[in-house]
Amino acid sequence: MTPLRINLEANDIPTHWYNIVADMPNAPLPPLGRDGKPVTPDAMSAIFPGPILEQEMSAQRWIPIPQEVRQIYAQWRPSPLCRALRLEQSLGTPAKIFYKYEGVSPAGSHKPNSAVPQAYYNKLAGTKRLTTETGAGQWGSSIAYAGQMFGLPVRVYMVKVSYQQKPFRRSMMQTWGAEVFASPTDRTQAGRTALAADPESPGSLGLAISEAVEEAAADPGVCYTLGSVLNHVLLHQTVIGLEAKKQLEKVGLYPDVIIGPCGGGSSFGGIAFPFLSDKIAGDKRAEKLRCVAVEPTSCPTLTKGAYAYDFGDVSGYTPIMKMYTLGHDFMPPGIHAGGLRYHGDSPLVSQLVHEKLLEALAVPQVATFAAGVDFARAEGIIPAPESCHAIRAVIDEALRCKATGEPKTILFNLTGHGHFDMGSFDRYLSGQLEDYEYPVEAIRASLKHLPQVG
Amino acid sequence: MTPLRINLEANDIPTHWYNIVADMPNAPLPPLGRDGKPVTPDAMSAIFPGPILEQEMSAQRWIPIPQEVRQIYAQWRPSPLCRALRLEQSLGTPAKIFYKYEGVSPAGSHKPNSAVPQAYYNKLAGTKRLTTETGAGQWGSSIAYAGQMFGLPVRVYMVKVSYQQKPFRRSMMQTWGAEVFASPTDRTQAGRTALAADPESPGSLGLAISEAVEEAAADPGVCYTLGSVLNHVLLHQTVIGLEAKKQLEKVGLYPDVIIGPCGGGSSFGGIAFPFLSDKIAGDKRAEKLRCVAVEPTSCPTLTKGAYAYDFGDVSGYTPIMKMYTLGHDFMPPGIHAGGLRYHGDSPLVSQLVHEKLLEALAVPQVATFAAGVDFARAEGIIPAPESCHAIRAVIDEALRCKATGEPKTILFNLTGHGHFDMGSFDRYLSGQLEDYEYPVEAIRASLKHLPQVG
Repeated sequence: MTPLRINLEANDIPTHWYNIVADMPNAPLPPLGRDGKPVTPDAMSAIFPGPILEQEMSAQRWIPIPQEVRQIYAQWRPSPLCRALRLEQSLGTPAKIFYKYEGVSPAGSHKPNSAVPQAYYNKLAGTKRLTTETGAGQWGSSIAYAGQMFGLPVRVYMVKVSYQQKPFRRSMMQTWGAEVFASPTDRTQAGRTALAADPESPGSLGLAISEAVEEAAADPGVCYTLGSVLNHVLLHQTVIGLEAKKQLEKVGLYPDVIIGPCGGGSSFGGIAFPFLSDKIAGDKRAEKLRCVAVEPTSCPTLTKGAYAYDFGDVSGYTPIMKMYTLGHDFMPPGIHAGGLRYHGDSPLVSQLVHEKLLEALAVPQVATFAAGVDFARAEGIIPAPESCHAIRAVIDEALRCKATGEPKTILFNLTGHGHFDMGSFDRYLSGQLEDYEYPVEAIRASLKHLPQVG
Repeated sequence: MTPLRINLEANDIPTHWYNIVADMPNAPLPPLGRDGKPVTPDAMSAIFPGPILEQEMSAQRWIPIPQEVRQIYAQWRPSPLCRALRLEQSLGTPAKIFYKYEGVSPAGSHKPNSAVPQAYYNKLAGTKRLTTETGAGQWGSSIAYAGQMFGLPVRVYMVKVSYQQKPFRRSMMQTWGAEVFASPTDRTQAGRTALAADPESPGSLGLAISEAVEEAAADPGVCYTLGSVLNHVLLHQTVIGLEAKKQLEKVGLYPDVIIGPCGGGSSFGGIAFPFLSDKIAGDKRAEKLRCVAVEPTSCPTLTKGAYAYDFGDVSGYTPIMKMYTLGHDFMPPGIHAGGLRYHGDSPLVSQLVHEKLLEALAVPQVATFAAGVDFARAEGIIPAPESCHAIRAVIDEALRCKATGEPKTILFNLTGHGHFDMGSFDRYLSGQLEDYEYPVEAIRASLKHLPQVG
């Protein structure tokens, strides 16, 4: 019988996270404060606990994963690496397609890989409560779960329109004991200001961030958590790539191409960095390795954004970071159904794309969902819309292999399942989805608002 | 590190299903036709293919699992056996609690264990299309998935009120390529009759069954599929218990108590029978083994029903089967949120309960969801409402162990995840659920309509 899943045992859960900062050809550019100088850990200590800030700034190659975190990881890790044999057969490709399936986590995505250590380090540092923002709820539900695992109360500011339209992710967070507020609330100054301006405000991710940060900054016992973009989040996600490497080794393979969806960049860094390090180190196997970040044409950060210093949030509260950005006041169009809506991208991923060690690709929405449905019908798993972006690129790559006859090994990141996104599949299946290419002029306009540096 | 998951490899997927019929102290009573005589395979061949009918009637102990089925099973099987260590700790019980987690299947429950072989045998027998009915959609989505795996078109008659209120299970079926109709339809005589009587009819499971059976009976190329109750469905589900046995052996344990939710009985038979056979065979390890089927107090088939011949469907189209039943015109109350709504139960499970080889227990709704939330908060997995019934009984058993100090090994069937049932959790969390004990007088009344035998 062809083995379709390559499993590892609990003891194979990585003992260390891999920090690409140690191996980057050029040191990453630091985030800057309002004074144009690199921000100090002190400046961020009001909202993040010490161990998280240490990891954020660290250049140490291997960072130990605490036993308490590995014990929680063991609930679903090592996640399976699966051979997409039926998809290969349906495409008639000589390529071997493998997917690392992160949808097996309790929250259904890769997000708990970072939510669990973030909750752990906060507990360790004496944090009394966590805050965060969430849009559709994937990160919110992960931190609700992780907080519960360490007995840490969690408050989630959920964009009001999602709170009303996606009640099931909210129920999931509440089942795990989190308090969920429809943002804007009257609990914070930011929320009250927004409500004064528009009592019917549907909210926005930027506003929800402001509320969560404001609560954390105002109370020494409260810390803020973030689900992507920052170095420590990418660090935590490297368990994906480290396990995948071990699993491919079990069947004597090494990837020719690694493909992952990319929004804030954490799952992409997570799967790519442990392999990219081989390429940087001159490992023969990785000589021709390509790592491809896939994003939507309606939010084309890496492919059409500027590589520049910009704020991490819409309101300009955060330090500025050097990254690919569409401008911090960029708003993805309403017709976009597939996640990956962040205006910027992880500074680490951005710099490595800029230095041509990583590639980026944008795919249109309708073809993305079509790929997701093809995958579901071949492999049985209904992928998250985010993951569908990678699948589109994987199928295209496999079809190129069919044309050239190359038996490439393709590894991709199936970051989550689509159980809470069936509404988007419904819109696709009933022909209601459209493609949208974000206009270059609009990007040029929003890039005019980039902050001045130095 | 305490191993929380006991995994098996693809080669450990069982090679044979276990048929309890071979080992029952008394041969099972046959289903009877309208003439009061045992039904022949011929009488059912209009709606079921030959290999399925053979399995339905078989007394052979071990029935080989075709390689093609094992290959599809390998997508998610062997399913993990997990130690509920955090739940044990939160209860302070000396009991060891293990759960077999069937929510890892593509459709999120144990149902594909039977949907896959049913689709396979239909394909083999030359069936051109499958029909079935579905309420909330758990079975419908499983057969949609399984049909897709073998290139077999599937038509699902979905109870109209569920079709309208639970669109996401419908989208899931459509994503897997199935046609889904809101029942009653104007496609069948049964549907047209219902619509003539009430154009706004919300539909019922009984009516949807009639439509699916009618389409299958009218067209030689079309066969009908059923997700529980019948012998062949229980047979297929024994992969659950066979794997669990091997997994417990890996850690040197044998269960003292096996607990599972029970509606039509297929998942319960699936986990219990491979262990019950040891008890029947006089195996020392199984001497004190208890197998407990858990049902809702609002649909208390095994605990308050009569052990009698009754129809399998509401309309009285099917052969009559000897089983625990509340009467085929029983309707579970509208306030019931937790599944397991069938008026009868598997004839095999019923007979073994009647012969005191299996036990049954009914649990009230609010305490059932409370147990589900306790489990979610301890273990991270949000259980299907059906599975919550087992969890209620498990927690009660573990608390008894705490009182007596007995370090029992408890095995339970976590039959699925609750991702498509968050609406019910929402109702629980917001205090809208109530308990409901089905009144004895009402059961007495519906039992008056049992068919006359002989």
